Amino acid sequence: MSKKVAVLGAGSWGTALAMVLEENGNDVCLWSHKAKQADEINFKHTNKLYLPSAVLAANIRATSHIEEAIKDAEVIVFVIPTKAIREVAKTVAPLLTKPTVIVHASKGLEQESHKRISEILEEEIPESKRQAVVALSGPSHAEEVAVKDLTTITAASTNEKAAKVVQDLFMNDYFRVYTNNDIIGVELGAALKNIIAVGAGALQGLGYGDNAKAALMTRGLAEISRLGVAFGADPMTFIGLSGLGDLIVTCTSVHSRNWRAGHMLGKGNSLKEVLESMGMVVEGIATTKAAYELAKQKEIEMPITAAIYEVLYNGANVEDIIVSLMKRDGKSEA
Amino acid sequence: MSKKVAVLGAGSWGTALAMVLEENGNDVCLWSHKAKQADEINFKHTNKLYLPSAVLAANIRATSHIEEAIKDAEVIVFVIPTKAIREVAKTVAPLLTKPTVIVHASKGLEQESHKRISEILEEEIPESKRQAVVALSGPSHAEEVAVKDLTTITAASTNEKAAKVVQDLFMNDYFRVYTNNDIIGVELGAALKNIIAVGAGALQGLGYGDNAKAALMTRGLAEISRLGVAFGADPMTFIGLSGLGDLIVTCTSVHSRNWRAGHMLGKGNSLKEVLESMGMVVEGIATTKAAYELAKQKEIEMPITAAIYEVLYNGANVEDIIVSLMKRDGKSEA
Repeated sequence: MSKKVAVLGAGSWGTALAMVLEENGNDVCLWSHKAKQADEINFKHTNKLYLPSAVLAANIRATSHIEEAIKDAEVIVFVIPTKAIREVAKTVAPLLTKPTVIVHASKGLEQESHKRISEILEEEIPESKRQAVVALSGPSHAEEVAVKDLTTITAASTNEKAAKVVQDLFMNDYFRVYTNNDIIGVELGAALKNIIAVGAGALQGLGYGDNAKAALMTRGLAEISRLGVAFGADPMTFIGLSGLGDLIVTCTSVHSRNWRAGHMLGKGNSLKEVLESMGMVVEGIATTKAAYELAKQKEIEMPITAAIYEVLYNGANVEDIIVSLMKRDGKSEA
Repeated sequence: MSKKVAVLGAGSWGTALAMVLEENGNDVCLWSHKAKQADEINFKHTNKLYLPSAVLAANIRATSHIEEAIKDAEVIVFVIPTKAIREVAKTVAPLLTKPTVIVHASKGLEQESHKRISEILEEEIPESKRQAVVALSGPSHAEEVAVKDLTTITAASTNEKAAKVVQDLFMNDYFRVYTNNDIIGVELGAALKNIIAVGAGALQGLGYGDNAKAALMTRGLAEISRLGVAFGADPMTFIGLSGLGDLIVTCTSVHSRNWRAGHMLGKGNSLKEVLESMGMVVEGIATTKAAYELAKQKEIEMPITAAIYEVLYNGANVEDIIVSLMKRDGKSEA
């Protein structure tokens, strides 16, 4: 059954999700905070900066007025950088007139509070105005979804009914959605895997090969699972689509900006240079700080996260620290 | 402490392991069943067919006479195709004059019997002539080890002391060895991941992208873990170096022959054409049959393995079967 859906955020992933929703027959309005970008989508049906080769259906409307985007929406999909989630949720909440399904497809942790995105949304949108919060996550480069390459993803919520609504909304022949009730694990997997992607990029930027990268990814998944379990996640979630699946795609694909940021660090660029050249938000950089602090708080050993943290925030030499990380004298694998 | 080591099998992996052992100061003899290849190693210090760019140390001796290779050896490393393990072990056993550490670095399951390689070795080499059997496995393309790229690997044995001997033997600055006591999980992970690599190759040969491959790898790891657990493996082993680590490297690297065989199948080549063009043993093809039969026996659901089996052994259309596999109507991720 077709629904009125607002997609908040017209980056590459928001745009690709709007395309899937329109394809499925929904009435989609895409919100951008830039009037010029909304105009480009409305009049040229393109989004050159974020999804260069895509041609959008004429049915996808865009607006830079958020109240227009969410008017009468039955479902609102947040696809904005983590650091903007709380502010946008604060704007949205008073405008809602009925209980709405709240979805998000962002991948990070809030700075300082270390909160997951669903926690922020639940804090800012009163219970009377939402049906449930659902996280959409998995191995899903926007560029591939935009050309209808087969993609498999998870809709996670503690509210099974809401997860199924989101599954039905997005599911089609090339976009396969599976439900999952472990939203803690799904959100933590999605956020934390970006740290490992930065590490994998740095390793390859330094000239290491596939053997070393596979070892780093394996140990990386183990350490992010440890942290997740300490926060109540099911360890199995980390070997599912939003953990392992997304880790693989983020560490091994040319599309990943977290990997690319790490790669630039490995090549000897400073954090400042990396951030200037990326042009898009690199969630893994902020997430490294949040995870580093959470690991300290829970006394969880996260050597890869700690190494990336030292490079990003304390100016440690990337080569020294990655080499010492990979050559640590572990004796047994367990 | 330097040891006398025989490496049986002068393929790419056997040659790379011989180079590591020699580098660590051991007295290494490499056995090839081809006199011409042994001559090439002895006189030209190359192995052009299997490890084209490597230059071997002059200290690495080669022979096509197995009794010469194993004479006085304290450690014997089997690095030959799975289907030749039993025959070579039968030849070796009567020649042994003292309890020897038996290592293997092969990745497969015996046809018909479905036995792991350590089981075959334990059957053929009497207890009085071996100290223990140790499996060496992990994400380790020979081409990268040969150029001293950092590699991390597992030495697995139920005999902890033997695992440590093997760890000390191989460990150096670029070749990191961790012990593991779950040899069942390590051997099954090593063998079964090749099936998923064939599947990932087929998917990409058909033109699917990184999102689809990551989903296949995630579900693939889940199904090989299920089979492993049914045979007494620790599920954690499958997210370690010989499971997840090796899966990543095998599915995402240009060096992998299992991936390349799948890729050719996806491109529409017949199994006969694939086998003719590879020139080296593709373990994943035989392992698919063994795993398919084991899954039936234990009533374990292995949809990816079953799909590859139908393509390889029943002439099923690769496109039809991979598409139906990826679009199965699963509802929940768990």
